Amino acid sequence: MDRRGFLSAGMAAGVAAGMSGLGGAGASVAAALERIPGWGRGKTMADGTLRLSSNENPLGLAPAAREAVIEALIHAGRYPGEFTAPLYPQLAEYVGVGEENILFGAGSTEILQIIVQAYQGPGVPLIMAEPTFEDVLRYQGPLSYHLQMVPLKADHSHDLVRMRELAEVGRRPAVVYICNPNNPTGTVTPARELDEWIAEAPESTLFLVDEAYHEYAEDPAYASALHWINEKPNVIVVRTFSKIFGMAGLRLGYGLAHPDTLDRLRLFTISNNPNILAAAAAMASMEDEAIMAQSLQVNREARDVTHRALDEMGLEYLPSHANFLMHRIPGDLGEYIGRMRAEGIRVGRPFPPMTGWNRISFGLPEEMDRWAGALRRFRTMGRI
Amino acid sequence: MDRRGFLSAGMAAGVAAGMSGLGGAGASVAAALERIPGWGRGKTMADGTLRLSSNENPLGLAPAAREAVIEALIHAGRYPGEFTAPLYPQLAEYVGVGEENILFGAGSTEILQIIVQAYQGPGVPLIMAEPTFEDVLRYQGPLSYHLQMVPLKADHSHDLVRMRELAEVGRRPAVVYICNPNNPTGTVTPARELDEWIAEAPESTLFLVDEAYHEYAEDPAYASALHWINEKPNVIVVRTFSKIFGMAGLRLGYGLAHPDTLDRLRLFTISNNPNILAAAAAMASMEDEAIMAQSLQVNREARDVTHRALDEMGLEYLPSHANFLMHRIPGDLGEYIGRMRAEGIRVGRPFPPMTGWNRISFGLPEEMDRWAGALRRFRTMGRI
Repeated sequence: MDRRGFLSAGMAAGVAAGMSGLGGAGASVAAALERIPGWGRGKTMADGTLRLSSNENPLGLAPAAREAVIEALIHAGRYPGEFTAPLYPQLAEYVGVGEENILFGAGSTEILQIIVQAYQGPGVPLIMAEPTFEDVLRYQGPLSYHLQMVPLKADHSHDLVRMRELAEVGRRPAVVYICNPNNPTGTVTPARELDEWIAEAPESTLFLVDEAYHEYAEDPAYASALHWINEKPNVIVVRTFSKIFGMAGLRLGYGLAHPDTLDRLRLFTISNNPNILAAAAAMASMEDEAIMAQSLQVNREARDVTHRALDEMGLEYLPSHANFLMHRIPGDLGEYIGRMRAEGIRVGRPFPPMTGWNRISFGLPEEMDRWAGALRRFRTMGRI
Repeated sequence: MDRRGFLSAGMAAGVAAGMSGLGGAGASVAAALERIPGWGRGKTMADGTLRLSSNENPLGLAPAAREAVIEALIHAGRYPGEFTAPLYPQLAEYVGVGEENILFGAGSTEILQIIVQAYQGPGVPLIMAEPTFEDVLRYQGPLSYHLQMVPLKADHSHDLVRMRELAEVGRRPAVVYICNPNNPTGTVTPARELDEWIAEAPESTLFLVDEAYHEYAEDPAYASALHWINEKPNVIVVRTFSKIFGMAGLRLGYGLAHPDTLDRLRLFTISNNPNILAAAAAMASMEDEAIMAQSLQVNREARDVTHRALDEMGLEYLPSHANFLMHRIPGDLGEYIGRMRAEGIRVGRPFPPMTGWNRISFGLPEEMDRWAGALRRFRTMGRI
């Protein structure tokens, strides 16, 4: 059945049947949606395309969050302000900060843009790794920064020594972007090294620490930079509901920083953000303790399938501390991406200069099996 | 019943009952929601507060749009790109422009911010009326414009003659913000006057025409500036789904301009906007031809109730070409706002220098009766 019309055409009956099947006062529309064809988990689209290209959560929006969105529809015609206000104390408690340390954005990417705008100045060094997440690069495009790209080290962690040298030339203001764990490599930059620099840096060095994949990081060398924010107004931590909570389509992220720092950032925010439905989904997601555990469990299982396939093929890969990994591709990357697309599988985009590698996002374990099957066929055909 | 828990606690049964009552293939979850207590129309909140303060649509999100949001929940975990792509051709056809003329934002306010950022420069005049919608004023705060506030004329239309004088000093670049119909006055600036200026202006004068209330304007003197966009890259029209489509909580607006102009603006956009649920609601709203007619009809009825009450009280008001109006308040505005709040009614905020006036947003006709009742009590008590 065409998904676009399934609600009006037949879903009402389906939901009703699902609900009577569930029975009892605890039954919900949102849970019943799970029983409707096309509402299952995974990254396989209606046309069969497997989307392993965007670091999304294969579990999608959690049932509790779907329910909260449906409930919040009653307020959808109203400006967000008072309806999103309860998000502040709830996130504050969840993360362990004060409400005055929180700034919400339309995805963590809005926070990245705000920071890039708020700290710009002619010739101010903007120091970032190569490769890393591209949005900061895009946002500085029309501004007058002095862009400094620093290649990752051999272990694909950030080269903090080189970045620090560039930041400390003349002790002028500088903005340092550190994505940890790093996208697209999935690797961790050790907290010990970063903490040492932050502890010694002048306040004119702004540390923009992007922790979009924070919840996935299990390496003991990793730690959040969050503990700095009240002591150091020049440290901003950025996180998101897009990944661990499967909310990429709803656009909700946040920055965590000293209140004085947020005052500066707030001059560059958009009015009336975040949207009401994203806020409702986020509040329900934080209340449901099972969501994070499930997301992490599925991610581990999918990563294991991916590791086994790559081991079998003898293809090198980087240790993953996120919901994706990067692995070697013998031959041309563009050709590989095109061939996977011909198999109905979308894999990661190029991240120069790592043209000998491909980023693969984790789907469900069985979806990684499908990808592994394509890899095996490529091997048989001498393509990899 | 507490709304927060009504879905999980009892709504499933309620929806099921509603649906079996509706029966047939055309029944939908979204329509059934209308039957659940608390899902009715209007601006009266769960605690009884009547919210006539934010120019929202009292009909809220239309049933067809609610249904589309529920359907789109399946994609809520994915990044918007391909799921929001169909919005472009649909809006293009709806508005009568090309897809290349459209830029979406998180509300029209994001488009306002982008324009203010993209055309900034040291000492560039930013010329706007006083009072007008405040977001442009907020967004230029941290930038280096030369702000020029021009009082409205006696008829509360924009003083285009004075604005033009300021724009043409030295024929340097200038940004002109024109909100038409104007918020908070609800008045129209005649298209004939604006067209004359646009026709003769140098390309260095950027016209930012905010038409958030476009659909409500019935004055024959009003016309959109949209017809200029392909001939004049220095004309940008901004509109929104927040008002006529009751989508304020979902955050979706758009700019309409020459493709070259949008290329310049796109450097300042946020990645991955708009959110998937707003896009789904917008597409369904444009498909449903009844929504706009219903919104306009309810607005006219509420305006009539408002006019009658103000006539009865002998309180002057401005002609309204929007979903609100401005009327005289004898005495102190802050005191009036506070007294209305004590009655459980929120009215508009102060818009200096019009401190002798209050802006009232239209609710349902019966909600305007409640407001009129409070006015009458104030009169009896000698307060107005």
